[in-house]
Amino acid sequence: MSAPTDSDLWPDVQPEAARRLMLAGLQSFAERGYHATTTRDVATAAGMSPAALYVYFPSKAALLFEISRTGHQKTLDLVEDSLAHQGSSTDKMRYFVRVFVAWHARKHTIARVVQYELRSLPEAEYDKVRAQRRRIEDSVRQLIGDGVRAGEFDVPDLKTMATAVLSLGVDVARWYSEHTRKTPEELGAEYAELVLRMLRAA
Amino acid sequence: MSAPTDSDLWPDVQPEAARRLMLAGLQSFAERGYHATTTRDVATAAGMSPAALYVYFPSKAALLFEISRTGHQKTLDLVEDSLAHQGSSTDKMRYFVRVFVAWHARKHTIARVVQYELRSLPEAEYDKVRAQRRRIEDSVRQLIGDGVRAGEFDVPDLKTMATAVLSLGVDVARWYSEHTRKTPEELGAEYAELVLRMLRAA
Repeated sequence: MSAPTDSDLWPDVQPEAARRLMLAGLQSFAERGYHATTTRDVATAAGMSPAALYVYFPSKAALLFEISRTGHQKTLDLVEDSLAHQGSSTDKMRYFVRVFVAWHARKHTIARVVQYELRSLPEAEYDKVRAQRRRIEDSVRQLIGDGVRAGEFDVPDLKTMATAVLSLGVDVARWYSEHTRKTPEELGAEYAELVLRMLRAA
Repeated sequence: MSAPTDSDLWPDVQPEAARRLMLAGLQSFAERGYHATTTRDVATAAGMSPAALYVYFPSKAALLFEISRTGHQKTLDLVEDSLAHQGSSTDKMRYFVRVFVAWHARKHTIARVVQYELRSLPEAEYDKVRAQRRRIEDSVRQLIGDGVRAGEFDVPDLKTMATAVLSLGVDVARWYSEHTRKTPEELGAEYAELVLRMLRAA
């Protein structure tokens, strides 16, 4: 986990002890995986006792769920902002890919844990996250479908196209690192143009 | 891990006990992560004793390395086959994306372990895999660069384009499952056309 890019994670989480536990959980899950991490590991990394952890999170699963839920909510906010963005469907898509890619580059540690530990969530929590994921996919399909109806995009298969757009952005979290020469914003701008090419936008 | 798509993994590995250990390791690493898996877990899943495991693999890390090394070699073979494929750069790229995407869909379990446990490899093994990854990236850049020089592709940034092409294929392993309606081959064909659009191929 690189401190400079992740230091502003969850600025709104209160109290500070809960935020510290989420950061410690994120770092442990990213380094060793969810199943190899104990609640004691997380508490110790946050400078707290296991008993203190349970004040904020009833279980290790609750901590993973909170990291996953807030991560997916961030993406949902981004795509809904993009749908509400002014301009053509091309403008909205360019805006979406720029911010979506930049977020996955900058917050690569959180995005990796959110994506790769999805199957570690208990069933009830997984169902909630799956509902968020469906809303994200539906919104991206709407963004693309609007552009098709407006005659801006040419799309052979709406579902595959939405998957490819999301996939390009999500996978940035896998390969992006602090050694990558391009900034998250530069990469977002380049990827936006590649996506518009896939959509055959003018 | 879905038996039908992974049942033909490592058909060439001999003796059968070594192949059984690689399959058991793959399944354990995929389900719980490398760090939460013990050599005893792997041996038990393969119906063997820990002592018998050490006959074939000196450590858990050696088992992960063998899974990672053979997975990367498979990709390197695919991209080198594509470079040697007959026809134009457009034909070669179409062929590469089809087989690369179909492989990541069909072998999603192995591809996930290879990608997500990369940082779990000890340093010496990681260096070897990194050398394979560089050769893969160089070959994809060559494939794209040849197409640019032949006037077939229009590429704003060669490095970003190679990253995007590989990324689209690799990320299929994250989201593809036995519930996906499209076959690996159908998806490969659709993705090949999306990549050719990104390259502005005719």
